Amino acid sequence: MPRDLAALAVAAATLLGPAHASSDEGMWTFDAFPADKVQHAYGFAPTPAWLDHVRLSSARLALGCSGSFVSEQGLVMTNHHCAHPCVEQLSTAGKDLVKTGFLARTAADEPRCPDLEVDQLVSISDVTARVRGATKGLEGQAYQRALRGESARIEKDCQKSDALRCDVVALYQGGLYHLYAYRRFQDVRLVFAPELAIAFFGGDPDNFMFPRYDLDVAFLRVYEGGKPARMKDWFRWSAAGAEAGDLTFVTGHPGGTDRSLTAAQLRYQRDVALPDRLLKLAETRGLVTGFQLLGEEQKRISIEYLFYVENSYKALRGRLEALQDPVFFQSKVAAEDALRAEIAKDPERVARALPAFAAIEAAQKRLQEVHKELGALEHGGAGDLFSIARTLLRAAEERPKPNELRLREYRDSNLTALAQNVLSEAPIHPEFERLLLDHALTKLREELGPDHPAVRRVLGKSSPADVAARAVDGSRLRDVAVRRRLWEGGTAAVDASNDPMIAFARTIDPDARAIRRTYEDEIDSVVKKAQETIAEARFAVQGRTTYPDATFTLRLSYGRVKGWKEGTREVPPFTTFAGAFERDTGKDPFALPPSWHAAKDRLDLGTRFNFVTTNDIIGGNSGSPVVNASAEIVGLVFDGNIHSLGGEYGFDEAVNRAVAVHLSSLVEALEKIYGATRLVEELRPAPAKPAKQAKGAKAAKAAKGPRR
Amino acid sequence: MPRDLAALAVAAATLLGPAHASSDEGMWTFDAFPADKVQHAYGFAPTPAWLDHVRLSSARLALGCSGSFVSEQGLVMTNHHCAHPCVEQLSTAGKDLVKTGFLARTAADEPRCPDLEVDQLVSISDVTARVRGATKGLEGQAYQRALRGESARIEKDCQKSDALRCDVVALYQGGLYHLYAYRRFQDVRLVFAPELAIAFFGGDPDNFMFPRYDLDVAFLRVYEGGKPARMKDWFRWSAAGAEAGDLTFVTGHPGGTDRSLTAAQLRYQRDVALPDRLLKLAETRGLVTGFQLLGEEQKRISIEYLFYVENSYKALRGRLEALQDPVFFQSKVAAEDALRAEIAKDPERVARALPAFAAIEAAQKRLQEVHKELGALEHGGAGDLFSIARTLLRAAEERPKPNELRLREYRDSNLTALAQNVLSEAPIHPEFERLLLDHALTKLREELGPDHPAVRRVLGKSSPADVAARAVDGSRLRDVAVRRRLWEGGTAAVDASNDPMIAFARTIDPDARAIRRTYEDEIDSVVKKAQETIAEARFAVQGRTTYPDATFTLRLSYGRVKGWKEGTREVPPFTTFAGAFERDTGKDPFALPPSWHAAKDRLDLGTRFNFVTTNDIIGGNSGSPVVNASAEIVGLVFDGNIHSLGGEYGFDEAVNRAVAVHLSSLVEALEKIYGATRLVEELRPAPAKPAKQAKGAKAAKAAKGPRR
Repeated sequence: MPRDLAALAVAAATLLGPAHASSDEGMWTFDAFPADKVQHAYGFAPTPAWLDHVRLSSARLALGCSGSFVSEQGLVMTNHHCAHPCVEQLSTAGKDLVKTGFLARTAADEPRCPDLEVDQLVSISDVTARVRGATKGLEGQAYQRALRGESARIEKDCQKSDALRCDVVALYQGGLYHLYAYRRFQDVRLVFAPELAIAFFGGDPDNFMFPRYDLDVAFLRVYEGGKPARMKDWFRWSAAGAEAGDLTFVTGHPGGTDRSLTAAQLRYQRDVALPDRLLKLAETRGLVTGFQLLGEEQKRISIEYLFYVENSYKALRGRLEALQDPVFFQSKVAAEDALRAEIAKDPERVARALPAFAAIEAAQKRLQEVHKELGALEHGGAGDLFSIARTLLRAAEERPKPNELRLREYRDSNLTALAQNVLSEAPIHPEFERLLLDHALTKLREELGPDHPAVRRVLGKSSPADVAARAVDGSRLRDVAVRRRLWEGGTAAVDASNDPMIAFARTIDPDARAIRRTYEDEIDSVVKKAQETIAEARFAVQGRTTYPDATFTLRLSYGRVKGWKEGTREVPPFTTFAGAFERDTGKDPFALPPSWHAAKDRLDLGTRFNFVTTNDIIGGNSGSPVVNASAEIVGLVFDGNIHSLGGEYGFDEAVNRAVAVHLSSLVEALEKIYGATRLVEELRPAPAKPAKQAKGAKAAKAAKGPRR
Repeated sequence: MPRDLAALAVAAATLLGPAHASSDEGMWTFDAFPADKVQHAYGFAPTPAWLDHVRLSSARLALGCSGSFVSEQGLVMTNHHCAHPCVEQLSTAGKDLVKTGFLARTAADEPRCPDLEVDQLVSISDVTARVRGATKGLEGQAYQRALRGESARIEKDCQKSDALRCDVVALYQGGLYHLYAYRRFQDVRLVFAPELAIAFFGGDPDNFMFPRYDLDVAFLRVYEGGKPARMKDWFRWSAAGAEAGDLTFVTGHPGGTDRSLTAAQLRYQRDVALPDRLLKLAETRGLVTGFQLLGEEQKRISIEYLFYVENSYKALRGRLEALQDPVFFQSKVAAEDALRAEIAKDPERVARALPAFAAIEAAQKRLQEVHKELGALEHGGAGDLFSIARTLLRAAEERPKPNELRLREYRDSNLTALAQNVLSEAPIHPEFERLLLDHALTKLREELGPDHPAVRRVLGKSSPADVAARAVDGSRLRDVAVRRRLWEGGTAAVDASNDPMIAFARTIDPDARAIRRTYEDEIDSVVKKAQETIAEARFAVQGRTTYPDATFTLRLSYGRVKGWKEGTREVPPFTTFAGAFERDTGKDPFALPPSWHAAKDRLDLGTRFNFVTTNDIIGGNSGSPVVNASAEIVGLVFDGNIHSLGGEYGFDEAVNRAVAVHLSSLVEALEKIYGATRLVEELRPAPAKPAKQAKGAKAAKAAKGPRR
């Protein structure tokens, strides 16, 4: 699942907690992990110390992925597709690291990634009472403002320096509010990345599929004060990797799930939101594919974007198909009916909670009325330059306001991340920027019609192509120094700027802000408040027996190595190197790279390459380590199978699988194909040091079959 | 609505008759036109002679449009977008008639259109009893075969020569079967076409919108024996054109509506069929837009295809939005419930008709299971060369079979049309063919997965691009003589061919035929039979009080010139030339052509340009004349407004409008901009000849307001 940002963007505002967790289902928070359930099923119960160690060894990539700390010297393992932005940004027309791969032979050869940030979750605390106190009795805009204001104050109180990131997170759709504090690493460097051809072997056709043959790995290193950061907690590597039936844990940051949406929200997703978003992605995909016909350079500068589009498309298509299944959809309706029936037993709760369902339904109708304007004006996806210009413009307007009155992304606790984004050294390609902006403007005109006032304001008597060319070609925002002056110069500097992209952003912004305000005041705040009400009723009825919907916060899932039955066909849990050579056609995306052909004779072709587990994961878990009961790495999650896409709305243990790179293939490839001696030495497990929980681990190993 | 084929393709198999016709609603057949309703509403009742004259003056373009005969010498008026394939095919890299327009100064200058066929409906007869006799008591495949066999025999009995075309048409979803016989003109020549810039001013952004400023007209001429055909019936031009409130008739060939689908079918359309088809169109649209970045020549050879894609996209999007409207959707469900309740009053009918609803619902579930294979293997849209190769291959296999056992498009009565298609002189562009075939194969792999047996058979160890290049580059099918040898040589010639595109078609065809057979046996025949059963029950309950769903057969609708209310805003019914000059930006698609700027001073800028009426039309009506009660032309339908797109499923007189070119603008432009003297003289109404129904017409003119 290349680029998990898509998952984040889509899962959006309406997250919370599913009805019933059974079997291996669940993306559990570390403060409420069901150790007894795991004990019951697998004979191993993680201790608080084990959980702390696993939590502190887990990494979050701020752009939307997961990872793990794998050495004392700040080495981080993640997916190639999570590090791809860095690999692409470090490439040039003459030196395409995406194609050739990269290995830093010495520490001095580790180049800095322009955009990556790595975070480590250092504490979780409950701030529900403080938030409830601030929002008590409020509705609509007032509720939203109070919620934001208190969240911003809590985050500000927590965030003592740039090295810390503090987020107030709504769990269980507002049933609980927790404060997550992260140690933040903003100096991240590239250590190793294989060739794209093997990192993403099978490309889009094999994406979300299994059997699979991908070395989707990259190693990064976090630095502090110009030196590798020293880590107290990090994962050791298992000696052998995973066997069929083994108990497996996946720690990581699932981006978002929608398992607690009401039936009205699911209908809106199925009938409006998903089709609309997919249509945009489909057209963009065609457009960029066509753009790549122009030549190798056009292909190079747009390939990362195309990955993002194709991956999002396939993921959302899978979600749509899950909702198109009448049996599944009906099961969601039935679950809601059951909850309502439970609530209905208590007259007082009825008076509060049942109107909340109706409020959400009414908000979906309103959303259907405004979604085109919202999509075209506020969520356009009009290229990097436009995005930078708008951030500079809005930052100048928002930062002078009190923290709680700002647009949410301009709150104090997020400014460091914003600055990193705006001041990124990542290259910007005008030709591609023009394509994207032209396209966004063409779609704006199409969606709203040529006579919509906002369209007239933006286009005047010009064509989308002309407006795009003027804004892109004359802009000096490609120069990071120019951006820095505008970022640091604030309102005065931005007001004085006559940069054409800033001017363009200025033209469209009043309309974009107006429709966003409509959305926030009339839809988002209504839904949030109603969800909170339902969540409280659900807690009252069910207690905190389950896990919250994913929110790009750290979660732990448990499961085991296991294939599945596809119709009447058994899918085995492992693939091997030999399978990759069989699948090789010599043609992209099924072409093994030259390095693999060169090393073929040296390789053990029986080496396990990829495998599947029953762990409950979703987009955002990319780069998550698979660890055993000894908290040793046995694999690296990089995808889910096609059935995992329906995991957005529910988990079906019969067919839903996480797809991971097997530890054995990592070792074999690093040593025999890439000659990554320095890296292997750093990773190789220290000899004979007893694992922290050796006893429990042995017990778990013995119990291969589940005990349920 | 450029290219109405899209509408035909989509409306597909499941057509029939709507529940209740009220107001100006209705696409009436000529054998059952409700003259009394029109009399009641507008004070004018068409006589049988009037109806015969209008029918015989109406033209059908076999590719999927309407038109009218407008002189004794076989002159035909239609839309530019209906003649566009001809204009494009007559163009070359050096001479782009799409851009420059075309005017034949003399008869000798009228070039032949490679692909156009024009038909005139000469008779309608009821063959229901004969069809029912053949299918009585049969189900499933046997029913389908008997239905096809009897239809083919009826058509064969009727069709005495190539100059006649005979179609058995299912009306009211099989409630009636009629035989439509057409006089067929296969020698069609181009007389006049304006520049695309004014024919499609506003382009895709203005498509399906109003106010509008398009001169979407073309004149063709039908020839017989190398000379202009002599017509007995043809429309004269009104002296003045249409006024607000005037009674208007539209005669033409609406391609298809789905107003009688069951709730289960509508759900399938909303949740699966429309989103899927739109996603394909969206991606293709992006791809061709990107392809056009390669240069002017690539743009020229793909622009017609892009029109088709964009038009289909916008039309289907409008349909999807109609079904996404919960109020509208619920009204369809309620109408079905009411019909079921009526049926339920008669126990015998219940036993027959209610299971038919269940059968349709079950068939939709089956369709959902197979629709991806059906779409990817049988309805791929893989370019012209592939389409030709498959037709040749299948024709060789099908033609030796008894007529009724063939795939439906290979029945005797359709062979002339097929031959015209396969032997068309229309140019084929290998670069674009490769793009489309590569794309179709990429989607095939994506939709079915790389490990699907059919995908493995088709691709082997090659990439889609390689397979496409091999099939296109080595093919000699661009040569019409080669095609003719294969068409005429039959099985022996095709079997002996080693043309790589024929070979490719041979590879994919067994899988395509298999899934098509599944569709026909398990879905289509079940649905057809069930629809027929429901239609009979509906007739029994309601009588033949309404019109059948559109089926690309000749229909007459009545209405009047009238604007509508868009929210709180009144949209006036007319635009003027002045408005076009105001809207001109000089940039495509809002750039008036040089000829218009040059003529501006000579033009009466107050000339009415486009107008709207309440006539009930849909895709396929493009090119329909708007006539007054005197059967004189007052306008030329070329579009519907955005609300007309929901007309697929129901008619809302409050907002649904036909959009037409006003007669005044045709006269003004032909005379003052194009200097089309020969044409204007041929068209100019003969002086002072009394119109056939002058009395009735006067009465209608007086009654501007409806009497309801």
